[in-house]
Amino acid sequence: MKSIAINGYGTIGKRVADAVSAQNDMKVIGVSKTKPDFEARMAVNKDYDLYIAIPEREKLFDQAGIEIAGTVDEMIQDADIVVDCTPGNVGPENLEKYKKIGVKAIYQGGEDHDLTGLSFNSFSNYDDSFGADYSRVVSCNTTGLTRSLKPIDDLCGIKKVRAVMVRRGGDPVQVNKGPINAIVPNPPTVPSHHGPDLKTVMDGVDITTLALLVPTTLMHQHNLMVELENDVAIDDVIDTFENRSRVLLLNASEGLSSTAEFMEYAKELGRSRNDLFEIPIWKESLNIVDGELFYMQAVHQESDVVPENVDAIRAMLELESDNEKSIAKTNKAMNIL
Amino acid sequence: MKSIAINGYGTIGKRVADAVSAQNDMKVIGVSKTKPDFEARMAVNKDYDLYIAIPEREKLFDQAGIEIAGTVDEMIQDADIVVDCTPGNVGPENLEKYKKIGVKAIYQGGEDHDLTGLSFNSFSNYDDSFGADYSRVVSCNTTGLTRSLKPIDDLCGIKKVRAVMVRRGGDPVQVNKGPINAIVPNPPTVPSHHGPDLKTVMDGVDITTLALLVPTTLMHQHNLMVELENDVAIDDVIDTFENRSRVLLLNASEGLSSTAEFMEYAKELGRSRNDLFEIPIWKESLNIVDGELFYMQAVHQESDVVPENVDAIRAMLELESDNEKSIAKTNKAMNIL
Repeated sequence: MKSIAINGYGTIGKRVADAVSAQNDMKVIGVSKTKPDFEARMAVNKDYDLYIAIPEREKLFDQAGIEIAGTVDEMIQDADIVVDCTPGNVGPENLEKYKKIGVKAIYQGGEDHDLTGLSFNSFSNYDDSFGADYSRVVSCNTTGLTRSLKPIDDLCGIKKVRAVMVRRGGDPVQVNKGPINAIVPNPPTVPSHHGPDLKTVMDGVDITTLALLVPTTLMHQHNLMVELENDVAIDDVIDTFENRSRVLLLNASEGLSSTAEFMEYAKELGRSRNDLFEIPIWKESLNIVDGELFYMQAVHQESDVVPENVDAIRAMLELESDNEKSIAKTNKAMNIL
Repeated sequence: MKSIAINGYGTIGKRVADAVSAQNDMKVIGVSKTKPDFEARMAVNKDYDLYIAIPEREKLFDQAGIEIAGTVDEMIQDADIVVDCTPGNVGPENLEKYKKIGVKAIYQGGEDHDLTGLSFNSFSNYDDSFGADYSRVVSCNTTGLTRSLKPIDDLCGIKKVRAVMVRRGGDPVQVNKGPINAIVPNPPTVPSHHGPDLKTVMDGVDITTLALLVPTTLMHQHNLMVELENDVAIDDVIDTFENRSRVLLLNASEGLSSTAEFMEYAKELGRSRNDLFEIPIWKESLNIVDGELFYMQAVHQESDVVPENVDAIRAMLELESDNEKSIAKTNKAMNIL
């Protein structure tokens, strides 16, 4: 039973904590917060040992009546690996700390690839992180791209990808983010960073991405245009997606014509926090025109990377050498389709 | 001085009425409404003769104290051409009426190309509608595509176009439209109708489009990927756009990073209704990668087709045989950049 520390119990951290707790070969030995907010209180209510990132703030937690188990420095001493879910600018500082103590660490997609020199996706490059000390689970968007592009590449090869990433303005909880009523090219330059980021887990793929922000909080949406290396029938693509876990073919015609309806679908699955760990693809959108595959998919930005974090733990701690076995184990524990 | 009747004084109709009034070779002889609403009242305040589409409703206009000049049937008797801006399903019925009376008519992009068998854009196929009895100004989105693609085609030829059309959910006034918080592939199939529609005014262009709706009211946004026939430098593309009217190269870096800021720009131009008749292109987004031109543009769906309607009148009534002369005349009267 390996010991996992979750540094940063926010949007991703709290989900990774629950996902780790659901596995039988790893356990959460602690989670950390910087502020005594409702998430800190609920972490304690869930019986997670709570550690504080800034020791001077112990009094604030005392005043709020939130029990702490110690400091982050103490938490990571006892861990086999730290899942770092802290905000982007804090990560690099933490790495120094992890190295000094000699604990392994997994970063999230908010950090640059260069921080660890190694990026992770369960399907495309699990082996690269096997036994590694430091790696990084790519962002929600890059994870979403990898989930559907890797099986296509395996099926018939990819010549070139163009993708337009229509991104949610902010998460449901981010009340200070926009836009409220505008479309914002983000960046207003082409290509966006998503293409290069995909290459960190799918080496050599030729991809150009454009990205924009729109006034929605629920999910990102991707428009994929994939020139194929070899001819293939659309039914083969459908079979491939249907036989692959963590991607879902859903029918717009069954009342699933938008990201809002995908979220309603997740609610009906009975998932905690209404999470949709899988990448849903609109089945009707699949079409091959002149050797080019077109499709539209969505990404639940708060949760799709969570199973990948569990697999990354298993790879880096050498708990499982076969990625398919880790994926199956994670899926089973999390009821992933 | 030609006599123009505007059948349907709504979002497009009221703008076309004002644009026609600004010209010196045509005049508005009447506008029509079905209901005695604020637009009807303000049309009369602006000194437009108001005609009613449904004679039985004369009483309702009387009760509202809105003076009418007669019925639509009477209005079109005196017209050289009718600009039909009625809702989509009414148009086909009206055509029978126009034919019976023997009056020319211009339709809007909400109607199918098949209704008139002829579609119009000022830059790409002005001559096709010269002297024609019935034509159709293509939709706001197709007009937007034509405005930027035609000059590229003229410059270096187009091999293939891919475009992802991120559409506003509804106009600012459409309080019953959605989505409020979702991304909606619309249609959820690929390709969308926009590609075929472009071909009605740019014959032979190879284009595939994907379209979706997002929660915004201000403008549509287009993501263009254009494989070029012949090599060209990005500066030549910039020069081409800068020398073409009705497209604007705007800098995100100058506080114009979103559709909302484009609308603010239109306000600063002092335009009536804050209209932006031009198609703004984010200058920073222009990039050529491997012989493919990428760029992002926006479309003010309420107004971009308005100058095209004026030019269509001029073509169909044989007021001007040279499209560039008509464009220049319309632009000058409307202060178009």
